Amino acid sequence: MALTIGVDVGGTKVAAGVVDEDGRILAQLKRGTPSTSVDRTADAIAEVVDTLRAAHSVAAVGIGAAGFIEPGGGTVRFAPNLAWRDEPLKAKVEVRVGLPTVVENDANAMAWGEYRFGAGRGEENLLGLTVGTGIGGGIVLDGRLHRGRWGIAAEIGHIQMKPHGRRCGCGNRGCWEQYGSGRALVHEARELASVWPARAGRLLQLADGRAEDIEGPEVTAAAREGDPAALECFAEVGRWLGVGMADLAAVLDPGRFIVGGGVSTAGDLLLVPTRAAYAESLTGRGHRPIADICLAELGQEAGLVGAADLARSVL
Amino acid sequence: MALTIGVDVGGTKVAAGVVDEDGRILAQLKRGTPSTSVDRTADAIAEVVDTLRAAHSVAAVGIGAAGFIEPGGGTVRFAPNLAWRDEPLKAKVEVRVGLPTVVENDANAMAWGEYRFGAGRGEENLLGLTVGTGIGGGIVLDGRLHRGRWGIAAEIGHIQMKPHGRRCGCGNRGCWEQYGSGRALVHEARELASVWPARAGRLLQLADGRAEDIEGPEVTAAAREGDPAALECFAEVGRWLGVGMADLAAVLDPGRFIVGGGVSTAGDLLLVPTRAAYAESLTGRGHRPIADICLAELGQEAGLVGAADLARSVL
Repeated sequence: MALTIGVDVGGTKVAAGVVDEDGRILAQLKRGTPSTSVDRTADAIAEVVDTLRAAHSVAAVGIGAAGFIEPGGGTVRFAPNLAWRDEPLKAKVEVRVGLPTVVENDANAMAWGEYRFGAGRGEENLLGLTVGTGIGGGIVLDGRLHRGRWGIAAEIGHIQMKPHGRRCGCGNRGCWEQYGSGRALVHEARELASVWPARAGRLLQLADGRAEDIEGPEVTAAAREGDPAALECFAEVGRWLGVGMADLAAVLDPGRFIVGGGVSTAGDLLLVPTRAAYAESLTGRGHRPIADICLAELGQEAGLVGAADLARSVL
Repeated sequence: MALTIGVDVGGTKVAAGVVDEDGRILAQLKRGTPSTSVDRTADAIAEVVDTLRAAHSVAAVGIGAAGFIEPGGGTVRFAPNLAWRDEPLKAKVEVRVGLPTVVENDANAMAWGEYRFGAGRGEENLLGLTVGTGIGGGIVLDGRLHRGRWGIAAEIGHIQMKPHGRRCGCGNRGCWEQYGSGRALVHEARELASVWPARAGRLLQLADGRAEDIEGPEVTAAAREGDPAALECFAEVGRWLGVGMADLAAVLDPGRFIVGGGVSTAGDLLLVPTRAAYAESLTGRGHRPIADICLAELGQEAGLVGAADLARSVL
């Protein structure tokens, strides 16, 4: 049975693992990303691969990277959080490790991992959403990863939800990830705490009385206790998530949405309002089935496992 | 060389043609749609097929129909402008004509026709848009029609562009087709003519002085003459079209958009502002190529030709 290595390269961490054909992780390690130097990033990837190979016979490497990846070529055109600009990552890693290497967008790799081994099993048309600080996405259609003409599909966090809306780091305004993400959850909570502190007593208490110090974990903790202010923040973020998913359903008609990322650890606190808004916003509702909206199952390892599985395409 | 018949069933007209393997129409006819009776609609389709078969040897029938089509089964779940509700159209037509029959959404058939024989040749990732009263869509990805889990993909006219926006017949508010369509063009022109008649002199003149009688052809005619008020209406509609296309690019990353439908006969009057808004709204702009936005080439026959070609799948 052939083993492959999956590597998840984020802005701060490189996580890698040896993965078997059933998506099981046999060995795993992490290190920091030297994010300012492209050659040192390639070196870091090669180091983790070599360390893992010492104990396992490995046939290929799959890399999930937060950036725009040229299909086939493995060049990273652009990465918002790393120094890559037209970086031939596949070639650089292949030279260093001597194994066939596949490079994929990290959110695509996550969606693929969930499709093959997690919450997406059995559904050939699905969307994976990573709801963290922003919203990432990966699209599986008819059992195949949809990469787009130039490998930039599924940048779903940047559909415009509100004309003249909140500024986004992509240069636009009103992007979905400014309303349905962890950043939005914190924005809601801090705004509520500053304009209506009496309502936000528990949130303020958890942040030592400073509205500007409220972070996502405080909102989740307060919501779990049943705090109405925190629940209201989740309701607002979930509502935006559901409306955006209805837009995606109008375009793609997926059978399932799989929600992962840091904010998804709140579970039903997030998904109950999301599902309600989705069902209320779906075009043609009443004349079509309602897609499942469910939690990711593979956690932080989804991208690593997905990248390792995608590496099998070269075997 | 096998011939097939393509049938385009709209709310008011049934158009059918005998089509060869190169997308050429060898014979064609039209009749009204008996839209209130589902059995009489099936009868009407069978009649046009039988008339065309009298002079040509035909192997299969492809129907493009304005509705939600169950993939594979050929059942129309729902059609906004016809009486179909869970209507087994494929089975009814096959019984009547004795030929294998394929049923496809009409905008999907249009996109497929343009992909195979029109403006989409050579581009395996494209979106076809029908900009008429509303906005219809068809999606070709990696050279395959994308139908979605339940056959309802590409209902792109109903992505929400504006929270609490204009009402839409789908039950939602703020749908794209309320801002980037022929209906919106007329809305703009009438509103302008009622609130600022001095600006809209030429538009009012073409409508015998009555703002409420301005229709799309008047706006197009005035814009062709260079009338600033009419050009402003096209600029507004084109802007919304371009913003929505940028949303679709964030999701799908197509290589080309093909714009057909009645409003597209205005050509560059529509497409120049559309392209400008698209380029300005595209997420990741500067780090990715800009997709072509071009006019459909097959005109009103695109759906018929596409449906006929899709019928070849059963041969």
